[in-house]
Amino acid sequence: MLVVSHSNLMFGMHVYLMELHILSDKSYQEHKMATGSILVTGGAGYVGTHTVVELVEAGYDVVVMDNLVNASMESMRRVNEITGKQVPTFSIDMLDKDALRDLFRKHKILCVMHFAGLKAVGESCNKPLLYYKTNIGGTISLLEVMKEFGVYNMIFSSSATVYGSPSYLPIDEKHPVGGCTNPYGKTKYFIEEILKDICTAEKPARRLRSAVGQWNVVLLRYFNPIGEDPQGVAVGRLKELTVYGNDYDTPDGTGVRDYIHVVDLAQGHVAALKYLEKGCGCKVFNLGTGKGYSVIEMAKAFEAASGKPVPYKIAGRRAGDIASCYADASLAEKELGWKAKLDLAKMCEDLWRWQSNNPTGFRTES
Amino acid sequence: MLVVSHSNLMFGMHVYLMELHILSDKSYQEHKMATGSILVTGGAGYVGTHTVVELVEAGYDVVVMDNLVNASMESMRRVNEITGKQVPTFSIDMLDKDALRDLFRKHKILCVMHFAGLKAVGESCNKPLLYYKTNIGGTISLLEVMKEFGVYNMIFSSSATVYGSPSYLPIDEKHPVGGCTNPYGKTKYFIEEILKDICTAEKPARRLRSAVGQWNVVLLRYFNPIGEDPQGVAVGRLKELTVYGNDYDTPDGTGVRDYIHVVDLAQGHVAALKYLEKGCGCKVFNLGTGKGYSVIEMAKAFEAASGKPVPYKIAGRRAGDIASCYADASLAEKELGWKAKLDLAKMCEDLWRWQSNNPTGFRTES
Repeated sequence: MLVVSHSNLMFGMHVYLMELHILSDKSYQEHKMATGSILVTGGAGYVGTHTVVELVEAGYDVVVMDNLVNASMESMRRVNEITGKQVPTFSIDMLDKDALRDLFRKHKILCVMHFAGLKAVGESCNKPLLYYKTNIGGTISLLEVMKEFGVYNMIFSSSATVYGSPSYLPIDEKHPVGGCTNPYGKTKYFIEEILKDICTAEKPARRLRSAVGQWNVVLLRYFNPIGEDPQGVAVGRLKELTVYGNDYDTPDGTGVRDYIHVVDLAQGHVAALKYLEKGCGCKVFNLGTGKGYSVIEMAKAFEAASGKPVPYKIAGRRAGDIASCYADASLAEKELGWKAKLDLAKMCEDLWRWQSNNPTGFRTES
Repeated sequence: MLVVSHSNLMFGMHVYLMELHILSDKSYQEHKMATGSILVTGGAGYVGTHTVVELVEAGYDVVVMDNLVNASMESMRRVNEITGKQVPTFSIDMLDKDALRDLFRKHKILCVMHFAGLKAVGESCNKPLLYYKTNIGGTISLLEVMKEFGVYNMIFSSSATVYGSPSYLPIDEKHPVGGCTNPYGKTKYFIEEILKDICTAEKPARRLRSAVGQWNVVLLRYFNPIGEDPQGVAVGRLKELTVYGNDYDTPDGTGVRDYIHVVDLAQGHVAALKYLEKGCGCKVFNLGTGKGYSVIEMAKAFEAASGKPVPYKIAGRRAGDIASCYADASLAEKELGWKAKLDLAKMCEDLWRWQSNNPTGFRTES
């Protein structure tokens, strides 16, 4: 015979009502928070750390993994300092499936934000096998472990480089992809194709939200994050800026790019996560400002921000570089409710401040 | 003080003259024979076994590795029976680097003929991750071990599927690649790109022939090997042939393909190997007959060869199928001195004979 005391029933009711309250009054991810974490691969890196901060501030539980090849634990110390939380951080490599399994056993993962990978265009041309192994092999390894643990949600750091040489501007998400001119770009393109194929193959189960067997994947195609430029137009920390080509068909002859502040980029990931949680299948979004600035305009903005001259020299065009590339970012605004807010001046100010405070990067003095 | 007796000197001279004789009068690969082997991955498979037979008959030492997922040791027993040699065969998987290293330690490998990989178009659509892991991950693993052992020569089984939907016919090697419609085809395309990038990155050393650090890679793009059809137009062993689409813009409305006899294909590999031995960098060749036959023509030829009716039914077009696809095979004739010799009738006769003698394939009755 089941006997339920009045007080117990009331207690149960109270908890039930509290849950209803949570689900109606607070956002869905805040409810999810209690039930699992967002795994950020490459979370100790440049875009990774900024995104971890935004995720923690939006109320998510976050777990970081990073092989620390291009990052240091110092960056995670700062993340913990800024957020006031201790973000669990695993120093593991994507290719080490046993280490991945250990992480997935220790933490219930709801979604993977996948930043990990090598990203230097020039290096990728010199060491293509390393890039294919790390980026493609690593992603396959990660996807296999995700499937083993029933995790079917991923937000992937892709790049506008997948568009190759633009056939029209601004570039929207329907622009053809492929035709990448370097191994780094190809790894981004290949991973996109792998993820699309998996989403197509593993049909949605008839359940709400992130049902088992149903992949939700958001491919975020970054334009030119300031401070980390996969397309190689570098600023700062250089005695002299080399401008590759001043005879392009652009207002001042130098290449035009869609520079984006890393904080805007990080917030785009949080917006994508909220979108993914509703169950989205495979979706692609540009993350850019929609505005193109030339290399010279960028140099001038950096001069204004730093109060120091940025001398530059003109060099010949580089193979594979394109004249202009900027985003049609309207889809992200419409679907994700996200829009880049920070302008070129702010990007340069923040980059200058960071570089002034961290002349040797994240490395601690030894 | 060095004392060389007359007889020793003469002996040395004799050996030296013999070597000169070998190098001038016999072909280079016959000289190489004594110094190492050709590793055939997937060598127990359909195209693999036929190529092993041709290689052995051309005088090469051959080592086979196969994970036996789509093949059996029975096929190697037959190869040994036909050739009268015992071809060393390793039952290992490409992803098992330790097993690969063991093979490379036991046998000096001069060149890898890389057939291994999953190849069913339909299955690849259902299990993309398995295909990417096996084909891409397996090839990366193989390439890494090759580099460890200083082996920089590869002949890769690619496919005309990399051309996607033809923009012109016949398709020559300059036709654009990419735009593949299924994961199987994408794995072929991705591997081609990986191999091209490696050849570009690791510059030729100034030495003759296959110098250390200099990759020689031949990408062989098969059209439609009879008996194994990666593009899915199947004949034989079926009670009824399903013809997918009879409303294409072709003479009889059914799809037109460039069917090629597996023995021609195998001989194309031997020709490619002789070409590669001269030091070729990265080269691409179509292996096709240059002639297109419709599915209906193929069915009629099979009827003639078998003396049995081949009933067929018309079904709708399949997604991703193209109307016509046939090769411009002139480059292989010019550069490799290779040309397909066997016609459609012969292809059908041989396929029919093989199927009649092997109703259950290579499996032995249990």
